[in-house]
Amino acid sequence: MATLGANASLYSEQHRITYYECDRTGRATLTTLIDIAVLASEDQSDALGLTTEMVQSHGVGWVVTQYAIDITRMPRQDEVVTIAVRGSAYNPYFAYREFWIRDADGQQLAYITSIWVMMSQTTRRIVKILPELVAPYQSEVVKRIPRLPRPISFEATDTTITKPYHVRFFDIDPNRHVNNAHYFDWLVDTLPATFLLQHDLVHVDVRYENEVKYGQTVTAHANILPSEVADQVTTSHLIEVDDEKCCEVTIQWRTLPEPIQ
Amino acid sequence: MATLGANASLYSEQHRITYYECDRTGRATLTTLIDIAVLASEDQSDALGLTTEMVQSHGVGWVVTQYAIDITRMPRQDEVVTIAVRGSAYNPYFAYREFWIRDADGQQLAYITSIWVMMSQTTRRIVKILPELVAPYQSEVVKRIPRLPRPISFEATDTTITKPYHVRFFDIDPNRHVNNAHYFDWLVDTLPATFLLQHDLVHVDVRYENEVKYGQTVTAHANILPSEVADQVTTSHLIEVDDEKCCEVTIQWRTLPEPIQ
Repeated sequence: MATLGANASLYSEQHRITYYECDRTGRATLTTLIDIAVLASEDQSDALGLTTEMVQSHGVGWVVTQYAIDITRMPRQDEVVTIAVRGSAYNPYFAYREFWIRDADGQQLAYITSIWVMMSQTTRRIVKILPELVAPYQSEVVKRIPRLPRPISFEATDTTITKPYHVRFFDIDPNRHVNNAHYFDWLVDTLPATFLLQHDLVHVDVRYENEVKYGQTVTAHANILPSEVADQVTTSHLIEVDDEKCCEVTIQWRTLPEPIQ
Repeated sequence: MATLGANASLYSEQHRITYYECDRTGRATLTTLIDIAVLASEDQSDALGLTTEMVQSHGVGWVVTQYAIDITRMPRQDEVVTIAVRGSAYNPYFAYREFWIRDADGQQLAYITSIWVMMSQTTRRIVKILPELVAPYQSEVVKRIPRLPRPISFEATDTTITKPYHVRFFDIDPNRHVNNAHYFDWLVDTLPATFLLQHDLVHVDVRYENEVKYGQTVTAHANILPSEVADQVTTSHLIEVDDEKCCEVTIQWRTLPEPIQ
């Protein structure tokens, strides 16, 4: 059996990781990883004539509902990475898009799968995918798209860490929605600095439920789960606004032998 | 009389403005403008062998104390700009650095002047500039460096807008300090969205007084001053932590005929 979407159009571009896209350890942030992946996918869409304006002229827009992110090694400050993107497959309601981020030697740094839906700009509801807005990607038409792992259902405990984040003007991107990569800044910032300096990201499962809006205050909750394996830790996250679930996330981390100074 | 620093080494590089470096109107943010200017200046330093590690090996680091930013037109999403930087002049305690940001046609988009000091990494106090850390820039040795405009001394009133901002893990950059370009996100976010959608930046005067640290909550205050000219407005800003002044800023804006939708 051929790989799903093997005939879909593959687009790739290079990106230099700047100092302001990195955290204090010089590792690119999770927000940056998604920002550059989405940038490549917007550039592919533009190159195929599927500009934001063209898509919006049909009264619709793409919204991501899930990411599954595998991280072999986070790109570092000043590294030039190659991002490849492919709109691999779609069925009437869901589109499946894959991203590969590689270093200068072609080694894989990250692999991201994602599920996208088409939303009506007037009703803000999910609509059937318009085939003319997918055809140029040469996506495979399928009955079922791959299921991405569901994040762990978040359960508050005595040790849950909770922090509020006010949605700022600059969290809204030119698509006029809160850049949902910014959720990662909130999610990860909720964890203590001592934890972040002693762990590397390994895998992230994200599921978006409801949109966050400008001016709202989101509440980010995090649990550091009891670890079953010596050098691995799982954290479970929830972002909500007024008790409405916006986003659930599970992150797997690798414990470093020593904290980064 | 020759222009100050005309013989100093000029470095330039290109940068594409990405969607995630822009606000919802598609204009680059003030934070982005400073981020890319500092990026070019770090690249110049690296090219001249004055890497962060090399500078730190002398037990010191550069710290900016003032910016004066002239904005003709903010770069826009997907625009490729050229940033030129020059370490124009220095005296025993202060270095004067200039930046030019231009569009593809060579038209000036922004011009930034700045004052930098050398800080001891152990005492966190200002020290005399080490000549060997400036010589490669071919900066002009001067008695007096140009004075940049002082921001208006901030005075709280009944209509002062005040918002708290928690300093996040991702506000710290690989130099291990709060990226002081992030102050602009706080400063500008303090103003109402309706104001930001109806004004373009014209000029910004910034003076840093005290460092902000991870985990602190800064308080950002803003006054929208009574306007004397029809299409111009001035705002006055203060960032403080526990009543200690961290940063004072004055911004001049141009009122747009209509708000950006």
